[in-house]
Amino acid sequence: MRMYDLIEKKKQGLELSTDEIRFMIDGFTDGSIPDYQMSAMTMAICFQGMSKRETVDLTLAMRDSGDVLDLSAIEGIKVDKHSTGGVGDKTSLALTPIIAALGVPVAKMSGRGLGHTGGTIDKLECFPGFTTEISEETFCKNVNNIKIAIAGQTANLAPADKKLYALRDVTDTVDQMSLIASSIMSKKLASGSDAIVLDVKTGNGAFMKNLEDSRALAKAMVSIGTMAGKKTAAVITDMDQPLGYAVGNSLEVIEAIETLKGGGPEDFKEVVFALGSLMLEFAGRAKNQEEARGLMQQVIDDGSALQKLAEFVSAQGGDASYVFDTDRFPKAKKVTEVKAVKEGFVHRILAEEIGIACMTLGGGRETKDSVIDLSVGIILKKKNGDAVKKGDVLALVYSNDDQKLEPAMDKILHAYEIEDEKPEVGSVIKEFIFE
Amino acid sequence: MRMYDLIEKKKQGLELSTDEIRFMIDGFTDGSIPDYQMSAMTMAICFQGMSKRETVDLTLAMRDSGDVLDLSAIEGIKVDKHSTGGVGDKTSLALTPIIAALGVPVAKMSGRGLGHTGGTIDKLECFPGFTTEISEETFCKNVNNIKIAIAGQTANLAPADKKLYALRDVTDTVDQMSLIASSIMSKKLASGSDAIVLDVKTGNGAFMKNLEDSRALAKAMVSIGTMAGKKTAAVITDMDQPLGYAVGNSLEVIEAIETLKGGGPEDFKEVVFALGSLMLEFAGRAKNQEEARGLMQQVIDDGSALQKLAEFVSAQGGDASYVFDTDRFPKAKKVTEVKAVKEGFVHRILAEEIGIACMTLGGGRETKDSVIDLSVGIILKKKNGDAVKKGDVLALVYSNDDQKLEPAMDKILHAYEIEDEKPEVGSVIKEFIFE
Repeated sequence: MRMYDLIEKKKQGLELSTDEIRFMIDGFTDGSIPDYQMSAMTMAICFQGMSKRETVDLTLAMRDSGDVLDLSAIEGIKVDKHSTGGVGDKTSLALTPIIAALGVPVAKMSGRGLGHTGGTIDKLECFPGFTTEISEETFCKNVNNIKIAIAGQTANLAPADKKLYALRDVTDTVDQMSLIASSIMSKKLASGSDAIVLDVKTGNGAFMKNLEDSRALAKAMVSIGTMAGKKTAAVITDMDQPLGYAVGNSLEVIEAIETLKGGGPEDFKEVVFALGSLMLEFAGRAKNQEEARGLMQQVIDDGSALQKLAEFVSAQGGDASYVFDTDRFPKAKKVTEVKAVKEGFVHRILAEEIGIACMTLGGGRETKDSVIDLSVGIILKKKNGDAVKKGDVLALVYSNDDQKLEPAMDKILHAYEIEDEKPEVGSVIKEFIFE
Repeated sequence: MRMYDLIEKKKQGLELSTDEIRFMIDGFTDGSIPDYQMSAMTMAICFQGMSKRETVDLTLAMRDSGDVLDLSAIEGIKVDKHSTGGVGDKTSLALTPIIAALGVPVAKMSGRGLGHTGGTIDKLECFPGFTTEISEETFCKNVNNIKIAIAGQTANLAPADKKLYALRDVTDTVDQMSLIASSIMSKKLASGSDAIVLDVKTGNGAFMKNLEDSRALAKAMVSIGTMAGKKTAAVITDMDQPLGYAVGNSLEVIEAIETLKGGGPEDFKEVVFALGSLMLEFAGRAKNQEEARGLMQQVIDDGSALQKLAEFVSAQGGDASYVFDTDRFPKAKKVTEVKAVKEGFVHRILAEEIGIACMTLGGGRETKDSVIDLSVGIILKKKNGDAVKKGDVLALVYSNDDQKLEPAMDKILHAYEIEDEKPEVGSVIKEFIFE
């Protein structure tokens, strides 16, 4: 078999066989197929696409390029959750304690964020002492005992994907549906869960800007998961504004805690409930979404979800007292108001601009080695559909460095699109996608 | 400027600017743009194409990546000739002495062939002692004195093209019209002639299999040459069978000499006259094609073209007596007949198969280091349109190695497509292409 012939086949719009895809990924991983052939192939894929079958084969070949975790030492049905990424997305922080409080095991690998805010691990590190560097033994023991553990990704999961993504990133071949879907799913399938629930963001702040593309990506991923033998479903959620009000690490942790206490922003709660009810169904803990939602509300109302968060933080070395007294989280030195300069209604909040504003304040990572300031961030005071008068406070900016404040405020002001007409604001939940 | 952005532009079907193309070729040549980005770009070009302007810019950028020869020390208008390559193509051997005999300077760089038969240099080396390793001084002196010199390509012509071609060759991005045209023309424009005449082959034995593609390539090249300030024209010639009867190095030299003596195959003579008359017009030696053809016939009839070949061979150290006594060329040990196994008319002779048969006999180079057997080859006895009876001799095979004979004979037999109906056989000259 020669990579040249595979490039030719794909260039002509023909389908690659299972063996051919495996040959390609194995060869690319071990270096026998050079980057320049692989980038010609990915560009050809951008133009010719891949069939469902090819996409599944690509995913499985990448999954098998490294470790495939065995979580059989953990009792129960393990359901993993993945988000395609958005601004203000603190879903895991509220969702996982709720699921665990209902007795469903949460055995999660998480990453640090490279982008506007930190990732889940960075946010959890707002609890002093908290660590994700726990042994495999502790990890399994914690899940079995308290139903929840989150570890940093240490295993060698899907190295082919890592290598391929790095190449796609510099050859403008990132934005192809099958390549995106297989990249995400190869890692999810390698991480050993029994079922997968996906949060596919849509809108200006998401990777997929329109509903059609988001739906195609969601369908592709659900189809891959299902064909690989895992129960898989997706929820398409709005990212035409940040999720909730808080953007920034400790601010988001506080918002998640508020939600576990029964408060929290409506849109955020909706996303947590939509994803959570699917997870509970897949785990066999609820018969249908209605029952699942009832159960989730119950563990919020009786305080057991909040208690579970404290238990979890404590089990991984963190100071759980912060869960019950959020004033203890470190505060940014200065809080500044961003005020509206015109009257009207909020039509859109460019989420990416808000994310960049947060990063500008020091709350995100520009490179892998950046140190994150956990205390800075933004609290949105107006969201889509809200009426605004000139001088109204649009957002509060939490900052520690005056030099970074001005450019961040500029970005926030520009992120708000204010028009005369009152807009129709739809639900944050756009669609459910099942196989 | 970033190569990534240029890839994105081309992927979206947008035009690259002159500066962008130069940035890309300069960076690729000096290694600052890696192969994997360039191969993604060439694949995107395969799908999105290049405009006329982009193709010219690409050609000029590649021309300027190395030496651009200055032939101003040579008097007169220098007209270069290039063929896209075919089987039995010994055109330069007959054409250049005719042109030189008419007082028009022939200052040619030639290469060795990598393929079915040798290149022009290999064929010229059939004359014992002949060398193309002559100094620049001798080269210019010979052209000024006897109007003809052919040197091996020693200068660093269009290194960007060399590097790009090597990459295209392993990433299935060879067959794109703009890339082919710019590759050929960058070297032609670097080699210093004042005008260029192109022989674009069409048919099963050519790189371009159909007239439409051949016409597009010819038009692209003529347009590039013209926009680069050189008079340029192309002739599209038939390659649905080998040109002439002889395939193989010394056999082709003998056929070229026969043609200079006034004999030779009709189709071969037609190609020589078509290209030659364009060259004479461009050089200002003839007012029109009719006058040019008359002049060419004259130097054949009065023996001065043959004399010019002898003069040229002698001036570069070769034994010119072979010109007047072709029996002196080394003979293959054995001549074997390939006989027809069915009756009918010859519809096609798969030129590539005949070429491979010649290479099988030892007459071509499989790798750069292969040593060519100059004496082996094939003489076709039947050509397209000829009636054939069972047992008729289709071709004679000149061989030195019995083990190579059988597979070569098989290939030749299979190359002949014999059908019941008499086919229409058109002229070897398909079209003239001018700007």
